[in-house]
Amino acid sequence: MAEHFLREIDKLKKSLLSVSAAVEESIRTSVRAFSERDAELAQQVIDNDDVIDQMEVEVEEECLKILALHQPVAIDLRFVISVLKINNDLERIADLAANIAARVIYLSAKPHMEVPNAIPKMAELVQKMLKQSLDSLIKMDVDLARKVCLDDDEIDGLHSDMYPFVETKIAAEPERTAEWIQLLGVARYLERAADHTTNIAEDVMYMVEGKIKRHKYN
Amino acid sequence: MAEHFLREIDKLKKSLLSVSAAVEESIRTSVRAFSERDAELAQQVIDNDDVIDQMEVEVEEECLKILALHQPVAIDLRFVISVLKINNDLERIADLAANIAARVIYLSAKPHMEVPNAIPKMAELVQKMLKQSLDSLIKMDVDLARKVCLDDDEIDGLHSDMYPFVETKIAAEPERTAEWIQLLGVARYLERAADHTTNIAEDVMYMVEGKIKRHKYN
Repeated sequence: MAEHFLREIDKLKKSLLSVSAAVEESIRTSVRAFSERDAELAQQVIDNDDVIDQMEVEVEEECLKILALHQPVAIDLRFVISVLKINNDLERIADLAANIAARVIYLSAKPHMEVPNAIPKMAELVQKMLKQSLDSLIKMDVDLARKVCLDDDEIDGLHSDMYPFVETKIAAEPERTAEWIQLLGVARYLERAADHTTNIAEDVMYMVEGKIKRHKYN
Repeated sequence: MAEHFLREIDKLKKSLLSVSAAVEESIRTSVRAFSERDAELAQQVIDNDDVIDQMEVEVEEECLKILALHQPVAIDLRFVISVLKINNDLERIADLAANIAARVIYLSAKPHMEVPNAIPKMAELVQKMLKQSLDSLIKMDVDLARKVCLDDDEIDGLHSDMYPFVETKIAAEPERTAEWIQLLGVARYLERAADHTTNIAEDVMYMVEGKIKRHKYN
């Protein structure tokens, strides 16, 4: 049975990595669709969200099956519970990628607009954080997880910069108010995606160290 | 041991209800602070968020302890996992109440502004949904849980109405652009709070019916 359990855990890890690969791809594609003003690419992200939703449900069912059949304790229990939570955060990041994609479809039908540096910087940082948070899980690397949490401060700073930028733009081009508000939404979704990667990193710290680390970096 | 387990479950239910009572109070107070433009009351919501964060951590630790010690199966396992997830959603609703409160502090220092009907309507509906989602958990009432999910559509409609309203206002009073964008934020936080109550209701359906209901009402 121990061997059977290890096989199940191994399978669970692989399933979670499939979810995270799909979510990384969604974020990357939504950001590319944004920078290239490509509505068709954005639509792909939206269409693919159902697939990720289904993957999330399957991982959750795997977790519950393992809990019911193997009744793990200590680090094994913490691992399964962490996967359950990380899985949920990943699915929400995919939802945010779909939200970005919806705004891309709206914005790409409008005349070209100036995009502040903050947005590509946030996009790059979110992708790095997502990758590192999953790496920290696989390597059980608490230091890497901690780095992800610290990066979130930079995201928050970039997000705050967006507000004065958009206000200035609305003052200069009031007829494009709706568009600037939609652009602000893109930055906000990236900021929320970064929050979810922080949750993932915190769950890794919890799993490895056995103490709940939440609310220390907020 | 079965009796000991039942006692633990009973204690867990009470702990979760304490969290939900505190969260309901946060939402109620943030909404009251908004309608009365009361920055002091809003500050109380923000200060109280740390207390709710701590309550969440305690409930999660209780869940993990029960899983480790009693290794529940079937409905009992589903109950504990649902509490774990509902607890997380409750804490996020409290975060959103604190976000609303932060905007109240900003807005209450500015001249009076017209508040569209959508905001008090959303606020009322979110409070009803939160109450009903917790009632559905306690009574294991799937029909009530389903009602909560359906109410979310009304919230989404009210939230969408906010965009044209704010755009018209910005056009009329461009010097108050920043304030109107903050007002939009209040509506958005209420919409996200409603999403979390929908998650809670879906978890209740899962717990009672044993099938994951997510992504059906999105």
